[in-house]
Amino acid sequence: MSDPRPIGLFDSGVGGLTVLDAVARRFPHEDLLYLGDTARLPYGTKSPETVKRYSTRAVAFLLARGVKAVVVACNTASSLALDEMIALSPVPVIGVVEPGARAAVRAAAGTTAPIAVLATEATVASDAYGRAIRALEPGRDVLHVACPLFVPLAEEGWTDNEVADAAAKRYLGPVAASGARVVVLGCTHYPLLAATIARALPAGTILVDSAAEAAATLVSTLPEGSWAPAGEEHGETHLLVTDASARLGRVAGRFLGREAAVLELVDLP
Amino acid sequence: MSDPRPIGLFDSGVGGLTVLDAVARRFPHEDLLYLGDTARLPYGTKSPETVKRYSTRAVAFLLARGVKAVVVACNTASSLALDEMIALSPVPVIGVVEPGARAAVRAAAGTTAPIAVLATEATVASDAYGRAIRALEPGRDVLHVACPLFVPLAEEGWTDNEVADAAAKRYLGPVAASGARVVVLGCTHYPLLAATIARALPAGTILVDSAAEAAATLVSTLPEGSWAPAGEEHGETHLLVTDASARLGRVAGRFLGREAAVLELVDLP
Repeated sequence: MSDPRPIGLFDSGVGGLTVLDAVARRFPHEDLLYLGDTARLPYGTKSPETVKRYSTRAVAFLLARGVKAVVVACNTASSLALDEMIALSPVPVIGVVEPGARAAVRAAAGTTAPIAVLATEATVASDAYGRAIRALEPGRDVLHVACPLFVPLAEEGWTDNEVADAAAKRYLGPVAASGARVVVLGCTHYPLLAATIARALPAGTILVDSAAEAAATLVSTLPEGSWAPAGEEHGETHLLVTDASARLGRVAGRFLGREAAVLELVDLP
Repeated sequence: MSDPRPIGLFDSGVGGLTVLDAVARRFPHEDLLYLGDTARLPYGTKSPETVKRYSTRAVAFLLARGVKAVVVACNTASSLALDEMIALSPVPVIGVVEPGARAAVRAAAGTTAPIAVLATEATVASDAYGRAIRALEPGRDVLHVACPLFVPLAEEGWTDNEVADAAAKRYLGPVAASGARVVVLGCTHYPLLAATIARALPAGTILVDSAAEAAATLVSTLPEGSWAPAGEEHGETHLLVTDASARLGRVAGRFLGREAAVLELVDLP
């Protein structure tokens, strides 16, 4: 007996659309309800208290819309507010940090160099990736690097030009010097800069994006048979945003790789 | 009879501290109450509706604190929401756009080249500077250039390095080509990048910062004798913010040129 309720996804903005994309591939027949708190983004430069307040209100909003699970498609919210979001939810809440840490530890198996984590200032300050990686592999060193300019670069569409290259060189010098060969893209905006990030690192460095792993986690979390069986028609994707600027359509298109239809403007407390 | 109420200032974040600085120089004996909506910044990438909603709530908050005037130390709020803020206020509300336009027209007197305005996407889309400049000088051409990356560069403290230089060259190529010799820094973050901006433009280009002119406008707006007479002790400056991240103190220090004491965390609806 399949469960017709949509899967909810939440991000501070549109970066989480990279996660939506991965979930849609894994669950093509499910309805997806994506909430981007675009009126208050970014979260990554703000305090834990503010991130917790905004994140719990967003999840409460999705719950009121009747979702059967929530994927927190935002590393900052996953790092700082996952416990609070789980505490208020009767349905599963999945963050992207633990899946990302798992993928990184797997990619680094058999090596001893540190795992590098590129993330927002708030995520770095929380040490959420460090805790998640050490929980899986206690001896592993973790090198955190905050890359705050990567978010506006991705939103500006400057993902592969000389400005992005100069920023990547500045941020990634310590990573290259550390010998790290596994680098976690610990913010859902960063996959858009993957080519530029790779150029600033030694050849052969593995970039870990938690989107696919988070979608796989959802498979093992939702009760067997609760999703629509293959063969049914494709699910619908609804995008809810708290601010709809002219810029949003452009930026969302960059993340989804096509023109995004913003369907609904909502107001969060 | 002097009026002991403070002068209020409002910005989306800490960029407006450049205006606070100018007002404090002009009114050393006045108490100043600065509100930065740091929990929801930036405004410059968001829609007019959201900017109006946040701006009016911020001014209502300052009015409830008993200010005798409000300086809207944010170009985006001044461009998109000035009429709405004036409509709800029994005390004078001064934006930074009209003062900046006046200073630009004065600086461009006797020349015919366009005046260039560097600003956020929202300010550019509003054409507020274009309207203000043409109201003063109907025939003047205005070239708007949105420079969204300048805000995060200023906040990151990357105001004078190769990343800032590369961004300035990208944004300012059309300005250099236009022959403009007067360039308005139409966002309160941009004065921090003045040296980098100047390097990307022909020698002798005049950069106009509306902070000093906005402070001068306040002199002519407040009733004669309503401010504290010289000779009294220095006024106090209170900073109110809606989010106090660790980053904030650092960033505020950059704008005020010294360590900023964040005095109060407030919650805006």
